Amino acid sequence: MEKSYVVGIDIGGQTAKIGIVDARGTVLAQTAIKSNDTQSHEVFIDNLCNAVKSLVEKNNIVMDQIRGIGVGAPNANYYNGSIENAVNLTFGGMKIIPFAQLMTEKIGLPVRLTNDANAAAMGEMTYGVARGMKDFIMITLGTGVGSGIVVGGQLLYGHDGAAGELGHVTMVRNNGRICGCGKSGCLETYTSATGVARTARELLDETDRQSLLRNIPADSISSKDVFEAAQQGDELAKDIFKFTGNMLGQALADFVAFSSPEAIVLFGGLTKSGDLIMNPVVESLNANVMPRWKNKIKVLFSQLKESDAAILGASALAW
Amino acid sequence: MEKSYVVGIDIGGQTAKIGIVDARGTVLAQTAIKSNDTQSHEVFIDNLCNAVKSLVEKNNIVMDQIRGIGVGAPNANYYNGSIENAVNLTFGGMKIIPFAQLMTEKIGLPVRLTNDANAAAMGEMTYGVARGMKDFIMITLGTGVGSGIVVGGQLLYGHDGAAGELGHVTMVRNNGRICGCGKSGCLETYTSATGVARTARELLDETDRQSLLRNIPADSISSKDVFEAAQQGDELAKDIFKFTGNMLGQALADFVAFSSPEAIVLFGGLTKSGDLIMNPVVESLNANVMPRWKNKIKVLFSQLKESDAAILGASALAW
Repeated sequence: MEKSYVVGIDIGGQTAKIGIVDARGTVLAQTAIKSNDTQSHEVFIDNLCNAVKSLVEKNNIVMDQIRGIGVGAPNANYYNGSIENAVNLTFGGMKIIPFAQLMTEKIGLPVRLTNDANAAAMGEMTYGVARGMKDFIMITLGTGVGSGIVVGGQLLYGHDGAAGELGHVTMVRNNGRICGCGKSGCLETYTSATGVARTARELLDETDRQSLLRNIPADSISSKDVFEAAQQGDELAKDIFKFTGNMLGQALADFVAFSSPEAIVLFGGLTKSGDLIMNPVVESLNANVMPRWKNKIKVLFSQLKESDAAILGASALAW
Repeated sequence: MEKSYVVGIDIGGQTAKIGIVDARGTVLAQTAIKSNDTQSHEVFIDNLCNAVKSLVEKNNIVMDQIRGIGVGAPNANYYNGSIENAVNLTFGGMKIIPFAQLMTEKIGLPVRLTNDANAAAMGEMTYGVARGMKDFIMITLGTGVGSGIVVGGQLLYGHDGAAGELGHVTMVRNNGRICGCGKSGCLETYTSATGVARTARELLDETDRQSLLRNIPADSISSKDVFEAAQQGDELAKDIFKFTGNMLGQALADFVAFSSPEAIVLFGGLTKSGDLIMNPVVESLNANVMPRWKNKIKVLFSQLKESDAAILGASALAW
């Protein structure tokens, strides 16, 4: 039987999205399951395999037509197919899960794993705004900050498969914010969606400035609240985006010195804030980059639907 | 006639070293000319071509046996063979010199150009301590700080051929030292040989601490002086190395997050200080890197003679 389809899976902190993809890159059908309702990776893999099978059957495809499964997940190791110390996953924690092997044993199909940001980069390169580019950096701005680095048309995996942890370069060397990774001052603690909320709480706490955000209980302020306040002209909220974009631009300037990309593609929840984040990022990048690259590096928002990019990218692993 | 030889050239700020290399990687003969006695790149290229011809003739080889010429130079662009805005070369300055083309017209042989740090990385990968490695970062600690990044066994050139300017990531974001590149706070201003001398002058100026270095006129203190003082137990000199190594280790930790290398190879004048620089670098790297890489990244000194590494690396371009 001809194996005309692949399955792409995007595992995030809250949900795992599953899609059936054909050779033209169309997501024929998709579904999602919770990824945070168990601390057992065995239970999660069972749930995931059941969801895949049920999605396939519902769409009048048989499992024999599926060539393989590509999975994007946090802390995934491309080389050995394991998920390593994924502290942001409830079933993760400080352990090494041979995810691809366990899933293959369960479902009888080859499974390839890569980290979620790499999967998004593959999706962007194949179907998105980085089509035809050989050198670009994908930065995902979600709960955390992830990255997928493409050099010479290939994803950069490095010696151990874990290259591209750009959320964890150190931006603040003294009294930096504590990061989930065990370090402090990491980019992620400032420019992720949670970092934006953290900045809001700090600013509200440390100053007397008026702000619409004071109407919201400090603990429940989200980056979306900050965005909405900024849209209504709230100066403090606008300053939070300036601070965030400035920090991100400084980091991007250093990344450019590393791999000299044609473009940097921003992806994830925070990009919904549009110019509020883009303008300070571009300004800061050009103020901090070496003169040879000033105004030469494109900064682009992803063109793919957030759900599709990761599913498509992960599915590309399975061909 | 069989083309059994190549010529490797290493252009530095003071001298250009020229070597004839055979297929086994033996430097059969070498010579050097001044690179800082003219502001005209035409005159320099004339001098260089004459030196190549004369070296070849002296060694009973004819030009027809030379397959090509590989050149390592600061600010060299691998893709188009030009030297761009090389402010550290007297014949450089803020201009674009189509070096490979001009030299080919003059000498009648194919010429390939790469930057000096990339050439050193190729030498190290082919004949040195990085033999067999597919992912490593070469950091050159000389007058400036340069880098050659190898990923998947290939030099990383990036979109415009200029990737790997790791001497110009920003280490100090407020009141950083002014850098020759036009930025401030660059790694190079702290951890190059000149950066070490600058740190010495600052520390002597800002404190009353006793030091052997006070016996030397401040303006003429070199990194070699600091090394010699440290060897004699001078506490201030030892602190300068600790400061330098700590800063370099912090930078390396961020580089590891980018490309996850098997090793970092240190090369150039400053490595002559041995443990004085190596110990704080390793300590700082492991204190600042993500937990997954702690104590896993090798930090190595180059094993090649400084002159040979760049000549050999450059010559590899010519095969």
